[in-house]
Amino acid sequence: MSRAWSLKTRPQGMPKHTDFEMIDVSQSELADGEVRIANRWLSVDPYMRGRMNDVKSYTPPFELGKPMQGGAIGEVVESRAEGLKAGDLVQHMAGWRDEATLPANQVQKLPDLAVDPQAFLGQLGMPGMTAYFGLLEVAAAKSGDTVFVSAAAGAVGSTVVQVAKAKGMTVIGSAGGADKCACVKSLGADAVIDYKSGTPVVKALGEAVAALGSGGIDVYFDNVGGEHLDAALAHAKLHARFAICGMIDVYNSGAATELRYLARLIGNRIQIRGFIVSDFMDRAAEFYTDMGALLKAGTLQRQETVHDGLDAMPDAFLGLFSGGNTGKMLVKL
Amino acid sequence: MSRAWSLKTRPQGMPKHTDFEMIDVSQSELADGEVRIANRWLSVDPYMRGRMNDVKSYTPPFELGKPMQGGAIGEVVESRAEGLKAGDLVQHMAGWRDEATLPANQVQKLPDLAVDPQAFLGQLGMPGMTAYFGLLEVAAAKSGDTVFVSAAAGAVGSTVVQVAKAKGMTVIGSAGGADKCACVKSLGADAVIDYKSGTPVVKALGEAVAALGSGGIDVYFDNVGGEHLDAALAHAKLHARFAICGMIDVYNSGAATELRYLARLIGNRIQIRGFIVSDFMDRAAEFYTDMGALLKAGTLQRQETVHDGLDAMPDAFLGLFSGGNTGKMLVKL
Repeated sequence: MSRAWSLKTRPQGMPKHTDFEMIDVSQSELADGEVRIANRWLSVDPYMRGRMNDVKSYTPPFELGKPMQGGAIGEVVESRAEGLKAGDLVQHMAGWRDEATLPANQVQKLPDLAVDPQAFLGQLGMPGMTAYFGLLEVAAAKSGDTVFVSAAAGAVGSTVVQVAKAKGMTVIGSAGGADKCACVKSLGADAVIDYKSGTPVVKALGEAVAALGSGGIDVYFDNVGGEHLDAALAHAKLHARFAICGMIDVYNSGAATELRYLARLIGNRIQIRGFIVSDFMDRAAEFYTDMGALLKAGTLQRQETVHDGLDAMPDAFLGLFSGGNTGKMLVKL
Repeated sequence: MSRAWSLKTRPQGMPKHTDFEMIDVSQSELADGEVRIANRWLSVDPYMRGRMNDVKSYTPPFELGKPMQGGAIGEVVESRAEGLKAGDLVQHMAGWRDEATLPANQVQKLPDLAVDPQAFLGQLGMPGMTAYFGLLEVAAAKSGDTVFVSAAAGAVGSTVVQVAKAKGMTVIGSAGGADKCACVKSLGADAVIDYKSGTPVVKALGEAVAALGSGGIDVYFDNVGGEHLDAALAHAKLHARFAICGMIDVYNSGAATELRYLARLIGNRIQIRGFIVSDFMDRAAEFYTDMGALLKAGTLQRQETVHDGLDAMPDAFLGLFSGGNTGKMLVKL
């Protein structure tokens, strides 16, 4: 018998602990081509909030009363599949549970890159690919650009800061509170904005841009939307490119976004593009080569916030919306 | 002695007649390389509102007490410039006045395309180029796409409707009032939304899309911003492209834009690009060839609203913001 988190009720606005329920899942005998996996690390990501709503989106909604899904790293404990044997470390999407039985085609062996396995849920996983392709492809950021990134202490944002610095860009990061700002600074950001300080983001960004003498921003990597997006519009330079990765500000509230500086799009020929990391899955090899080298060389610091044990999953998830994580949010089993 | 309109005071919000003042301008002897032009047609455009503010923009602000500028078509009445002689029809930017003295390098002879000269202020001029390159280049619209265009009875919008139809697209146009909607329909639009009907644009667009069975829009050509932009976000299909040409909704009010559907950018990988027609000036030859052929073949209908005489310039200009024009707004001298 294994245990899994399920959604008991679909949250209205901010999710609550009572929306989640632990269920027992009986494990049947393995069929040919299947493996049984003991999960070691579970991924906790903002996009999961979208799957809690019963609406069509780019990922299907979670089913009530069934085990939820999410990225996970585990160890094969039993195998009837060719190419996978007990002891292999693998990644898959059957998270939110302690044990998973899966057909081999839903399981990927971790590439041998000499890094800790949980890195494949962070900088070498979905958040890392999101940061990498969002910055370099969607926003077409290049050496010499001034890059503004929101939620810069988060899993994606902290990787954006470091990849941008590694590629010769000037970086302004926004984060909430002195500790996170110090963390973003320690990752190499040239300027940091504390959006909880009471200074409007548009004013703080203007001051940062003035202090750096960069005349504005060339790139905005958006994880939050709202006031940050408006500030980026206010300070965007000619031909600025915005990669829209997330809008955590509106995931729960569903509130309208108020933009005062939207008309600057026209005179400054600003380009705004939404994207999903899965669009770049066919370029994983290129990503592993480049990011793996940066990680091994120590150019990237790995930031993680780790909760212990399956019981802690809802706590970890709710923490995403109250600023509870620095870097990648994980649960260790 | 000639006469010209000047800006007396910079408008706050909606401009008023008292912001404008007619002034006398003495004409000096022509210098070598100069021509004197009797203006025949004056262009009246929404972008001129921006030049009335004392802020840095993509065109410099009008100077108080000096003749204002704008597109114009005139006839050379006296020339000391090579290649230009009395009787030549020319276009230039010394509008808002009855007579202009200019160096030859600020004057262009009209290409010989066998169309009425005022077409070079409309479909063969700035509004036409805006429609053409905005639709085909910025939004990369192609045959089979469903295109939504706001202010579809305006100078730019009416050309977007017709170019889109000529290129094999399905077109939904939005305009204000029954007369304008009938006009947009007569230009070939497959569906028309009357934004003054009391039905929210987001609902009307949803109904239009459902009736056409197109499942959403592939392209949005934005002339107004605000509620129309939000409706376009609500109904955008995967990989939709938005060309942001104007935001007449906020030019006078300076109000914030409220967007409820902005987060759809992400899941639908929507791309939004602001642009200015002058970015495409080096491609004028290509434009004249393609658009000139469509005009001569009778594929494009020319829509014009004409006011008579220089005194009518402020009336014509203010009419742009109260929906007073169908097609290109012009003053005939």
